[in-house]
Amino acid sequence: MTARIGFIGLGIMGAPMAGHLRAAGHQVTVANRSRGPRVAELLAAGASWADSPAAVAAASDIVITILGFPRDVEEVWLGPQGLVAQARPGSLLVDMTTSAPSLARRLSEAASARGVLALDAPVSGGESGARNAALSIMVGGTGEAFAMALPVLERLGKTIRHLGGPGAGQHAKMANQIIIASTLMGVAEGLSYARAAGLDGEAVLDALAPGAAGSFQLNMLGPKMLARDFAPGFMLKHFLKDLSIAVAEAEVLGLELPGLAQARRLYEKAASVQGKDAGTQAIIAALTC
Amino acid sequence: MTARIGFIGLGIMGAPMAGHLRAAGHQVTVANRSRGPRVAELLAAGASWADSPAAVAAASDIVITILGFPRDVEEVWLGPQGLVAQARPGSLLVDMTTSAPSLARRLSEAASARGVLALDAPVSGGESGARNAALSIMVGGTGEAFAMALPVLERLGKTIRHLGGPGAGQHAKMANQIIIASTLMGVAEGLSYARAAGLDGEAVLDALAPGAAGSFQLNMLGPKMLARDFAPGFMLKHFLKDLSIAVAEAEVLGLELPGLAQARRLYEKAASVQGKDAGTQAIIAALTC
Repeated sequence: MTARIGFIGLGIMGAPMAGHLRAAGHQVTVANRSRGPRVAELLAAGASWADSPAAVAAASDIVITILGFPRDVEEVWLGPQGLVAQARPGSLLVDMTTSAPSLARRLSEAASARGVLALDAPVSGGESGARNAALSIMVGGTGEAFAMALPVLERLGKTIRHLGGPGAGQHAKMANQIIIASTLMGVAEGLSYARAAGLDGEAVLDALAPGAAGSFQLNMLGPKMLARDFAPGFMLKHFLKDLSIAVAEAEVLGLELPGLAQARRLYEKAASVQGKDAGTQAIIAALTC
Repeated sequence: MTARIGFIGLGIMGAPMAGHLRAAGHQVTVANRSRGPRVAELLAAGASWADSPAAVAAASDIVITILGFPRDVEEVWLGPQGLVAQARPGSLLVDMTTSAPSLARRLSEAASARGVLALDAPVSGGESGARNAALSIMVGGTGEAFAMALPVLERLGKTIRHLGGPGAGQHAKMANQIIIASTLMGVAEGLSYARAAGLDGEAVLDALAPGAAGSFQLNMLGPKMLARDFAPGFMLKHFLKDLSIAVAEAEVLGLELPGLAQARRLYEKAASVQGKDAGTQAIIAALTC
């Protein structure tokens, strides 16, 4: 069954995701701040271009957004020419940006007031997950909205979980980022220690990866840390954005997370040393050695 | 080829390890501080009992120790009736305790002065790794000593790596513990956050485990954290011992590890709240929620 799907935000995540939906035979209308080679490729594959969120909404039954920052989401969804104001009642809006749970609840309420369905559905798995349609997708919203979205989300990810009402997807994503923040800090500290102790880093990785210290982060970013390869899979500036949201939400919840606070200080230091566009593995550059 | 193997330290790790060596047909002589049911089982399987390290050394070509604390290792290896003084020149001593790299170098020097071979070979993989002969073994020492030990170590572990000279095995194990310390802190903080946000913990684990937040620690201890099951796989008191060694060695190396320092404070708090015999997953009890 093909649907009319709008897709706003064609970055390193969004572009391949929109491509999967087009490849599945859906009618895809895209919009993006800029119109570079990734957009050209999608149009060549048969997607249509729209000049505004309003135009995307007019052409679509389901609109997906995956943007940079919460303020971008707010503008695209809640502006006067935004998705919520322009979407047809009964249509579905899905925000896959990692954003604030409190904003997700506001988006859902605004949509609901117009008879529009809404979901927060942030993802995990990075660029390779997006390219291979192997993302984990954490979904918050009503059961009705989830049921409508599921066949589309199944084209984008492998693990798709409905975790609760509006904001629950973002909360789960925050839990995910909180775990990653300290896991990767541990990897950086362990590998820094190994280097300072004069060990061969690759032999250590090889010995540790199958054991109790093993993790996705160790496997993916440990080798890059050893090679001092800070090219971004996931940029520090985006991770720092996620961590600020997590810190703010934890505070609202009355929860103290000292590991997260410490990790965030190191990611900030890494950004000041290596630049905000460096990958998260640059945290190792924040350690004195 | 069967060997005469001595085994000192028959705790939850050592007892099944000694059992594997006996099951492989080796002549095994054991000693332990106490003589409980685990020892009785080994003797029933054909191991011989010895009353002292000296008696173990006299009966063995290779002696393995896996004890609680560095001071125990020092006593068993370096005491007047200890292994180094009593071992036959050309025989091999292997310490599999997680202990200080600096002590490993001292043991190796003392052994070498008597023509005795020595290795540091701490393990990762916990009780289940010991029971299933699936440990990761990180080895430091000479190539000659490693070659002599390898056929025996292969009965105990799956990933066996020679990482450098004396102390290199302990250094690699410290890197391992440093990584685990913050990884598990991240898991505890992420799951605490999820709970505070009102999410279903098991659904969150299920959504996060296959993705970028995934780790051995999340898989093994995440469910126990959710169930507030603090029964030990690995006791806080032993982990805290490892972390003190890591902190001290990092200081010697001039390395600042703020994540490790923060994690250690939380494990200490967990030990004061839940007791030192609780498992490492009790770190979640150190978070206010």
